[in-house]
Order: sequence, then structure tokens, then C-alpha cells
Amino acid sequence: MSSEEGPTQQQQPEQEKKPDEPPSAASDAPQQESGSSSPAAEPPAAVAEPPPAAVAEPPAAAPAAEEKPLSFRALVLTGHGGYDKVKLQVKTMAKPKLKAGEVLVRVKACGLNFAELLARQGLYELLPSPPVTMGMEGSGVIEAVGEDVNDRKVGDRVIALARSGMWQEVAVVSADRTFLMPEEMSFEEGAALTINYMTAYMMLFEMANLRPGKSVLIHMAAGGVGIAATQLCQTVQDVTVFGTASASKHETITQGGVTHPIDYRTKDYVEEIRKISPKGVDIVLDPLGGSDTQKGYSLLKPLGMIIVFGAANCVTGQRKNLLAMAKTWYNQLSLNTMKLMQSNKAVSGFHLGYITDEQLFGRTMSTLLELYKQGKIKPRIDSSYHFEEVTEAMKRMHERQNIGKVILLPEPKKEEEKPKSNAEAGENVEKNDAAISEKKEEEVEAEKD
Amino acid sequence: MSSEEGPTQQQQPEQEKKPDEPPSAASDAPQQESGSSSPAAEPPAAVAEPPPAAVAEPPAAAPAAEEKPLSFRALVLTGHGGYDKVKLQVKTMAKPKLKAGEVLVRVKACGLNFAELLARQGLYELLPSPPVTMGMEGSGVIEAVGEDVNDRKVGDRVIALARSGMWQEVAVVSADRTFLMPEEMSFEEGAALTINYMTAYMMLFEMANLRPGKSVLIHMAAGGVGIAATQLCQTVQDVTVFGTASASKHETITQGGVTHPIDYRTKDYVEEIRKISPKGVDIVLDPLGGSDTQKGYSLLKPLGMIIVFGAANCVTGQRKNLLAMAKTWYNQLSLNTMKLMQSNKAVSGFHLGYITDEQLFGRTMSTLLELYKQGKIKPRIDSSYHFEEVTEAMKRMHERQNIGKVILLPEPKKEEEKPKSNAEAGENVEKNDAAISEKKEEEVEAEKD
Repeated sequence: MSSEEGPTQQQQPEQEKKPDEPPSAASDAPQQESGSSSPAAEPPAAVAEPPPAAVAEPPAAAPAAEEKPLSFRALVLTGHGGYDKVKLQVKTMAKPKLKAGEVLVRVKACGLNFAELLARQGLYELLPSPPVTMGMEGSGVIEAVGEDVNDRKVGDRVIALARSGMWQEVAVVSADRTFLMPEEMSFEEGAALTINYMTAYMMLFEMANLRPGKSVLIHMAAGGVGIAATQLCQTVQDVTVFGTASASKHETITQGGVTHPIDYRTKDYVEEIRKISPKGVDIVLDPLGGSDTQKGYSLLKPLGMIIVFGAANCVTGQRKNLLAMAKTWYNQLSLNTMKLMQSNKAVSGFHLGYITDEQLFGRTMSTLLELYKQGKIKPRIDSSYHFEEVTEAMKRMHERQNIGKVILLPEPKKEEEKPKSNAEAGENVEKNDAAISEKKEEEVEAEKD
Repeated sequence: MSSEEGPTQQQQPEQEKKPDEPPSAASDAPQQESGSSSPAAEPPAAVAEPPPAAVAEPPAAAPAAEEKPLSFRALVLTGHGGYDKVKLQVKTMAKPKLKAGEVLVRVKACGLNFAELLARQGLYELLPSPPVTMGMEGSGVIEAVGEDVNDRKVGDRVIALARSGMWQEVAVVSADRTFLMPEEMSFEEGAALTINYMTAYMMLFEMANLRPGKSVLIHMAAGGVGIAATQLCQTVQDVTVFGTASASKHETITQGGVTHPIDYRTKDYVEEIRKISPKGVDIVLDPLGGSDTQKGYSLLKPLGMIIVFGAANCVTGQRKNLLAMAKTWYNQLSLNTMKLMQSNKAVSGFHLGYITDEQLFGRTMSTLLELYKQGKIKPRIDSSYHFEEVTEAMKRMHERQNIGKVILLPEPKKEEEKPKSNAEAGENVEKNDAAISEKKEEEVEAEKD
């Protein structure tokens, strides 16, 4: 995620391609999904919906006439705005020539993050300008390794991180940013682990000082980071978790470890917490920003810490909402050190995208993978969408329908999943999906958790 | 230190006094200093210098004619301003009637803190308005216990804490705010332990998250908190300590555990630290405020924390300096959460005086006393001054001449310590002290550490 390497990664695959490159090393990856036919065989027409204008842009680098081109599907942000700005494109390129330290990954699953919703609206400054392939995390199988890569080999199942460019069938990433997956981990779990769990872990254990007996307020407790944070809180004795979520999700988050679920839509969470714990809480994880940061600060016990790691309150409608942004900005917590001294409180900000410490990444992932092996954490997959369903995936997260992680699958939706009458374009499926999504949208309007 | 109990404590001893109360239980206190003659026998004339106007105020509650009054020496802040505002007074009172949970302590040693310098200038809002006996920490021997006090008995050697009122020969304090001293601990060490070590401990381990391999910047590393923090850093493996102090103190603080001493007077400490650790430091303990807070913030590594716990930059001359205050205030770090997110940093304030969590006090003191017994921490006593030498004591701290803790002793300076020709008032001694002090003042003007 260093600013030096990330932005260029999505262009990497469009460099020279040798046709004799093995397409995949599926034999080493028992859990790898079957049916991932050669991307080159995927007809562009199959990705027409959504969005309708997909495959609009020609590949940046046309393959040399004598080489067999490699085609792959990619989700490209073509401009800032609504859902239709993310288009499924089929790119064609020569075989990428890997630099030293790089690996080529055949991507099997990708994570959708709130950052991508912000990025689509033009609110995420770390994503390069459109057009750009989105995606910060994924999992897959190593298909080729560059020079000086000694600890990765073709066929390794890995989690991969990048600043952008993971939402495509093949991606070139730095080997340092890949992590070997345990055998029992599915690709979906691998894609769900990195951003959410690293964010939660670094906040709770690097930034705050979570110890036995402490209490934590977790907003959006049914979201990706919320579930990760709740699970990580369980790794410490006697931690009380207050979690906000809509009532329908309370049973699930309670099973996941939330001690006191709070329906923020019908109750004032500050009052609810004060009823249970008059002195407040020790740690507040705040992905909302604005007035919620002020509330969280007020809830802190002495020596407590609030960590602001998002501004979800900025995101209301499908497009950039200047009023919501202004409101969030205006209401954000501003303070000086004198005030902090008198209250004995700590305020911090966290943004994984601005962390460039490779050792920290490595150490954290190593800890998380160990916790996974011990069964102490397990990513909860809310749903998996194929690339052509990215609009539904984004809607699901935007409308806070998800409980856990929303996954994107590069491989095309299979024929058997589609109604036979619309086998090629899957129109009915998409229409059905859209209809369901709209219904839910009414039900959960203005919901956030 | 709860705001409810503190401010009234200094008046407590001036209530009813039964003359049959045992004056002391020295037999249980082997290290108790000898020669503490009955305070009642202390002639008021002996405390005339400094300050000249001592014993100006009559005791608030005159003893009943039939009771033998208890006289005791107290250092009283009579107004805001220079050194002369702290006056040695002899108060007379009836035997205090202890409330449930209270104990009467015969004070043997008191700590001088930077807060008292601020308070004298009118810059410490937690001290009640003058006239008020100062002093937040001391050690001594329990002379009487109130009802419901089961874990303290007459003769116990204790450390005692209060919001004010500890700078007197006898003090009534809440038993909860007393802590049994280990046998091997001197009264001076006891008086030096509480404020400085609790402050350092809570900052490093409750607020920040000091762990192996981290780096810490300690300003005023030769001061009370500085030395405490340095020692506490040694209890964690592989912690790098950058400590600012004037060059003459480097040898001492290096022996105490400072890895990289920096003479802030001749060098830019930001540059010096960057030379050694280009990425900066993990934790900054900032007692200075103003522009130094901004520098400290800039020095933080990602996931690092600065803790502001003072505004020593406000204190320049002997009296309140509005320009220095305005400058410190103007330059203080102000920030919003967006900025914090992009830098992945934490800013916190710490002020022991605003902490009211009794359990936290008890837990912290218990840990500190255990560390003391294990030999891992040991308060460094810079110097001890008798009450009549309080001006010299304050000057020594104000001018940053001290390396370690400055202690105040309630008992009068002994005859043998004084030149024979001035046995009663000790004039020559004080003049000599003052002369020495003035000389040093020239040498170390504008010095801070």
C-alpha cells in the first residue's frame, strides 16, 4: 500500500505477455473454484450487464500481432459518481514481464470495502484517477514469479494486497504484499481477511491498548471491520463489547461476541451505553465521523481512546453528497491539547491506506493467520457476487444489508446459475437481483450498521 | 485527588483536637527521622525566614481554652505571584476529629511538583483559591485512624496523596489515598514516588502502549517525571529512550537508562532524533506544550502517540507571564480527526489531577511498589529542603537545576545544620543558599530540563 508502487499495479498486466505462460496452477489449490475457463474465451458480450456500457475502453496496450493475447476481466472505475461508473471490461494484453520481487496472481476472490464506495464518489484520495481498476485485496494462486522471489512459487495460494487493481482476473503484485493462505482457508475467507482484520487489529492492539476488563464501542458491528473487531475482542479476557447495528442483525452479532447490541435507529446509543456503564467505555472505534465522533469522545472514560477510521456519515446517496460531507466535516471533533489534558483522553485517526510499514503488515498478517489457524477468528462472508453483479454488491454494502464481508468473484457467473432462456447475458438474473435489491432498499433506507 | 475531598483537606486538621492523642507512633517506623520534636514546641520566630512575612495568618479555628492546642508548620500559598507568595506559617488547632475512612498522618517528607510552581503563578486550576496549604504528595506515619479504617493502623508508614494540603506537619487524608511503604523505602523516596511515577506509569502503560522495541522521547529527562519514565521504560525489553536535558546532566541520565541524551539548548532535538531514527519515535511524552507539541507530533511514527501532560513552556519568569502563555496557547497543537486519519497518529492529554478512579490509583501504586521492591525503579532524590527553605526548593526546580525529585521536609532545620552564630533564625544559611542559588540562576538561565 505504499504510494510508490500501488497506483501503477493495475497497468502492470498490460505489458509483454509470453503465450507459453501456464494459465494457472490449480493442482496445488484444492479449494480453488472450478470452472474458471480461460479468460480469453470469455466473450465480451457476456459482460454487457451491468453496467450496459461495459467494455467501453480498449486495452491500453494492444498485444503484438505475433503473440496470443491474454484477455481478462476487470472492474474499472471510469469516472466518479453512481454505481454505473464501475464497469466490467475485458482487457487484452501481452504477457506481463514481472520485475524482480513481483508475482503474477490469478485472482479467485476479491474484497469489497467501504473505501471503494467512497472512491467511486471521488472521496478516496488514495485511488489513482479514473480510469482505474479498483480493488485493494484479493486471494488467488500464483501463476508466475519474478526474479529474487524466493519464498513464493507457482501454485501457492495467497492473499494479496495492493493500493488498487485487485478487481481483475490476473494481477501483478509485490511478493512482499502476498501472504500464504492456510490450507483450510477458502479464497473468499482469504479475500475477507486482510483489510478488515488488519484494520481492526492495528486499531485495537497497536493504537489502542486493549487489555482484559476493557470495554469497546464498535459501530457498524455487523460490517466487515465490526465483525473482525468483535472477534478480536474475544481474544482478550473479559472485554465488554457494545455494538451498534439494526435490530435484525442483533442475534448474529450477539453470537459473534457483542455483549450489548444497540439498535441505533430506534435508540440513542449514548443513553443506552450510559445506562449499562455510567462511566462510559474505554475504546471507541468510529467509522462514522462527524457528530458521532463527538458522541464517542464524550463516552470515553478517563484514559480512554477514540479511533476515527472513516467518515461513513459522508456517504448517503449514490453520489457525492456535498451537504452530508459539509455536515460531517463541520461536526468533526476539533480539539486542542489543553482540552485533552483536562479530560485525560486520547484521540487518534487510523487509515490503513496511509500505512507503509512493510514489517508491520507482515507481523500483523502473521498474527492474524495464526489466530485463524487457532480458530479464534474466522471471516464471516455475507455474500459473494460475480464481477458482472458488482452493482448489486455495492448496493448491498451501501444500504448496510450485509452482515460480514461482501466478496467479488472474477470468474463469470456459470451457465447453470442463469435461467436457461437467458444463458448468454443472464438478463433475468440481473433483473431479479435488481428487483430484490430495490425491495430491500426500501426496507433498510437510511440504515447503517 | 477527587475534586470532592481534596480542597477541604487542608482545613481538616484545624478542627477539634483531643490533647491525649498520641503524638506519634515512631516505634513501628524504624526509618522515621529522629529529632522531630513536638511541633507545639516550635517557636514561631524560628520560621521567620524565608519568607519574612511567615506566620502572618492566625489559625482559622482557635483552640478551646481548656484544650492544649496542636501547633504545626504549614507552607501556605497566600496569593498568586512570585516565590514570596508561599509562606511558612505555624498553625494551631484543636485535635482533628477524623471522619470515617480518614487517617491523620504525621508528615515526614513532601514532594515538590511543577504543578505547584504553576499554582503559585495562578495557573493551576485544581488548587483552591489562596490562602491554601499546598502539596499533593507526602509520606509519613499514621498517628490516628477514623472509623471504618481497617487496613491502616497507628504507626504505619505510608505514602499519602491529596489535592492540596500535604505541605504541613500533620495532614488528614482519606485512608484510600494512603499506601503502605515497603520497609526499605525512605520517607524521601516515598514522597518522590507517587505523582511522578504514577504520571509516568499511566502515560506509558495505560494511555500509550509501550511494548518491546518501541522508542520514546522524554523531555526534561532529568526531571522527576523524566527519571521515572526512563526507569519505567527499562522494565520493557529493547526500548529506545531519547531524552532531552542540558549537557551537564547527560552522564546521569545516561546511567539512568536514556539511550540518546540530547542537549536541547545547543541542538535541534528534532534533527538529532531524525539523524538517529529517520522514521521518528513511537511515543512522545510532552510536558512543554506549545510549539514543542507540534514538533513532537511531527516526530511520531505511524501508530505513534504524543501525550501532552503539561505546559512548562508557560512558565518562564517567577510570575505569570502572559506573553509566554499566549505563545504556548497559540502554538498548541489543534487538529481535527481528518488530519489524524491521514497521519495514523494519536494525540492525548494527561493530567493526574483530573483522574478520580480510585481503583486505578490503587492498582498503579500497587504495581509501582512491587517494581520498587524488585529494584526495578528507585526514585532519585535531587535534594531535600526544610520548609523554611521552600524558596530555594522552588528556585531549583524552576531553573531546572534538579536531577530528580526535590523534597520538602516539614521538620525544622536542626541546630547543628546552622552556623552557631545564627542558631535561632539560620539567617546566614539562608543567605548563603540564596547566594548560591542566584549564582546558579545566572548559569542556567533559560534552561529547561
